[in-house]
Amino acid sequence: MNSPARLLAPDQVERVHQASLEILAAVGLRVRSHTARTLLARHGCRVDAATCLVTFPQPVVERWRQACPATFTFHGLDPQTDRTIPDDGPLVSISGGAPTAVDPATGQARPACLQDIAQAARLMEELPGYDLCTVPVIAHDAPAGQFQIAHYYPALRHCRKPVRGTQPDTADAEQVLHLGALIAGSEAAYRARPFLTYVCCPVISPLTLDVDSTDMLIRCAREELPLFACVAPNAGVTAPLSLMGTLVQCNAEFLAVAVLTQMARPGTPLIYYALPSVADMRSLVYAPGAIETGILLMGCIQMARMYNVPCGGLAGLTNAKVNDAQSGFETGMSALALALSGANLLVIGGFLDAIMTYDPVKLVIDHEIGLMLKRAQQGLDGDGEAEALGEIADVGPGGTFVDRPHTLARLRTAALLPEIADRAPRHQWAAAGATTAHDRALQRVKEILERDSPMTLAPEVDARIRAAFGGLFAGPASGD
Amino acid sequence: MNSPARLLAPDQVERVHQASLEILAAVGLRVRSHTARTLLARHGCRVDAATCLVTFPQPVVERWRQACPATFTFHGLDPQTDRTIPDDGPLVSISGGAPTAVDPATGQARPACLQDIAQAARLMEELPGYDLCTVPVIAHDAPAGQFQIAHYYPALRHCRKPVRGTQPDTADAEQVLHLGALIAGSEAAYRARPFLTYVCCPVISPLTLDVDSTDMLIRCAREELPLFACVAPNAGVTAPLSLMGTLVQCNAEFLAVAVLTQMARPGTPLIYYALPSVADMRSLVYAPGAIETGILLMGCIQMARMYNVPCGGLAGLTNAKVNDAQSGFETGMSALALALSGANLLVIGGFLDAIMTYDPVKLVIDHEIGLMLKRAQQGLDGDGEAEALGEIADVGPGGTFVDRPHTLARLRTAALLPEIADRAPRHQWAAAGATTAHDRALQRVKEILERDSPMTLAPEVDARIRAAFGGLFAGPASGD
Repeated sequence: MNSPARLLAPDQVERVHQASLEILAAVGLRVRSHTARTLLARHGCRVDAATCLVTFPQPVVERWRQACPATFTFHGLDPQTDRTIPDDGPLVSISGGAPTAVDPATGQARPACLQDIAQAARLMEELPGYDLCTVPVIAHDAPAGQFQIAHYYPALRHCRKPVRGTQPDTADAEQVLHLGALIAGSEAAYRARPFLTYVCCPVISPLTLDVDSTDMLIRCAREELPLFACVAPNAGVTAPLSLMGTLVQCNAEFLAVAVLTQMARPGTPLIYYALPSVADMRSLVYAPGAIETGILLMGCIQMARMYNVPCGGLAGLTNAKVNDAQSGFETGMSALALALSGANLLVIGGFLDAIMTYDPVKLVIDHEIGLMLKRAQQGLDGDGEAEALGEIADVGPGGTFVDRPHTLARLRTAALLPEIADRAPRHQWAAAGATTAHDRALQRVKEILERDSPMTLAPEVDARIRAAFGGLFAGPASGD
Repeated sequence: MNSPARLLAPDQVERVHQASLEILAAVGLRVRSHTARTLLARHGCRVDAATCLVTFPQPVVERWRQACPATFTFHGLDPQTDRTIPDDGPLVSISGGAPTAVDPATGQARPACLQDIAQAARLMEELPGYDLCTVPVIAHDAPAGQFQIAHYYPALRHCRKPVRGTQPDTADAEQVLHLGALIAGSEAAYRARPFLTYVCCPVISPLTLDVDSTDMLIRCAREELPLFACVAPNAGVTAPLSLMGTLVQCNAEFLAVAVLTQMARPGTPLIYYALPSVADMRSLVYAPGAIETGILLMGCIQMARMYNVPCGGLAGLTNAKVNDAQSGFETGMSALALALSGANLLVIGGFLDAIMTYDPVKLVIDHEIGLMLKRAQQGLDGDGEAEALGEIADVGPGGTFVDRPHTLARLRTAALLPEIADRAPRHQWAAAGATTAHDRALQRVKEILERDSPMTLAPEVDARIRAAFGGLFAGPASGD
């Protein structure tokens, strides 16, 4: 992409930055984590012990935000799937953390379970447009005492790509590290190439840092375990009911987390990653499918570029409950806004009903949207106009380009060839069963899930994991 | 919008322009219209009488393209609906010219008829996001001898907004003018505020100008009747199979039409209006729903801005045959690309099956997409960061914005409040009938069509039209 879309003029970018600095200096954040307050105080923030209010002097923010590195690396089980942004971007992934899932066998929504994770991992392993394997759900059948590891194990067992999931809490963290060590061969080997990346939400908008997520953020930074935070203000409820106001607050909240992370360990990689949204003020319902999410994210990405940090966002959400036209246009539009803004990480798919329901069929539909986003960010072929001139002159007025060597050489590469979008004329489409995009994507889900799934782990490694952690759900794999 | 999205760097814009000039100078166009050849020759183009090939010396192109005005005005029956771009833009409209229509009563596709035009006009009159009333179909029941007037009459009878339709041929043109004069009171009154705008396709890609459309283009320019041309190269068939090559050819074809128009009458308003697309090379099927249409249009809009002419395009087309997820994401994505590029005229909706089927339900769905596009082009509220600062400081960490006067004052304006997109949580949505976007839009179509439709024409004017042209189809209106 030669020049990403900008909704903010350069002086507006500067004004958003200045307003964010002023919020941090004059209003500050309520910081509930004692560890964080101590760290912030040590590096020049002002802490009121009674109220837990912390203000950030501007020089402190300016100094520490400049410690943020310009790249972030995702590691996969298979090193060939490693991706570093911005250079390897845009990366496409799905969202995570839904309590509900649509069962591909029945088409009905029901409480999410571990089987959903295993199946989602198989789908993401097969679909080349997905760069990461995100744990899509919070499984109701994850056993107490092994909650996080139960989520990560089926994902790792079925997908070699970098796995992304919810940050474990303090107790779970040891188990997850142990799982990593068992797979990598040793804890040192895992720490050298950590193939799990955590996402956390330490900010409770407006302007509050919690205890558990914030403590884990600091710990991960110190231990060099990859993690990034999501900032998610909601205009009208947890942020001002104006897009500019929500952008300013979102940016201040990002800066607070970035500064804290760098204080924990300077040079810790992070991502400017956000889900700013509006509430529908008719009912106060959460409306992440709104076009405003895309507009707000375009503003965030401009700020991230000013800060020279890798950037992305959660777009492509929808308030639709089924894969209908609403689902299509809400997903496609905010996701394209994010892509055209030049974002490096496009978390766009797989979810219905705001962020409540994971649907494997939507995961397949959104894979195609992800390919369209990559195509859009690629833009127009750099300096192709000279070659084009020759082509056009050779063919001349009234000629055809169909049989040209230039054409034949580019049949499969010049344009995206979709698999879910049907392009047949109406009569052919009717003769072939008059399917919807949902029907075709469901068919693809079934094809992939019915196929043998090669296990990603060596049998002896898998046996060691099962011995260490009894009762983990695995999901069927052909290596079993 | 502060800074539209750009896929081309400034030097690429210049290179596309130079390549276009070179095509026009070295390759030229085959110009089948004798009138056009004469006009072009008179103003310095080189015409080969034997082959009808016309080349355009660069100084000729540069001189005449600079005669293009920077604005284009659409007039409506009701002067309050007049719109001038770029200032009043973006304008949203639907596509036109489909031979097939989905019947809202049966849901089935069938040959398009005049009733579809009357109903579409009623829908566009009621839906505030549509700025123009486009004649959507080619009606199979339009009587021979009154073909074009049969299309324009039901549109004018049900919608006060500017009407846009296919350019009439030489014989029809007099009838259409007569219709305009009967409504306006006199031919002079009609010519002072012509409420019909013609769209024509004089270019047959690659690089050919036809006879009829080109002759009418010249005639309309000379008679000051509003008209603009659509340029529609198809990569792989009628243009090189590369996006840059197709952009260069599209731009050369636009320049040829622009230059010819200005030679016919300097200062004739026009629009840089295009539908560049790719063929799906697996089957050579026309694929205007592809993301490449959006990418190509973004390139066109950048060129138009360099030429300082009003600009737009036909995006938001889909290859889907029903209003499913494919229809949603294809429509929304290319349309958003066009909107974020800063286009002034967004022709985005109402059609399925490439450009073959008009569907009133999709017209309603796409109205909501059109509102989202306007919101996106509006972007972030200019200098709202100062006010936001005060809001955020007043609410403070952990507070709520729900009950703030700032919030209450902006409940209905800060964010788009959609009517087709359903935002209820799953259980509420299920209890309310578990509808799709298609179901809800169909319901809206029925509500509008069942309502009394006030006739736009005075009864005596209507009687005069019926007397002058026997047997015109009108569509029921409450003034009848």
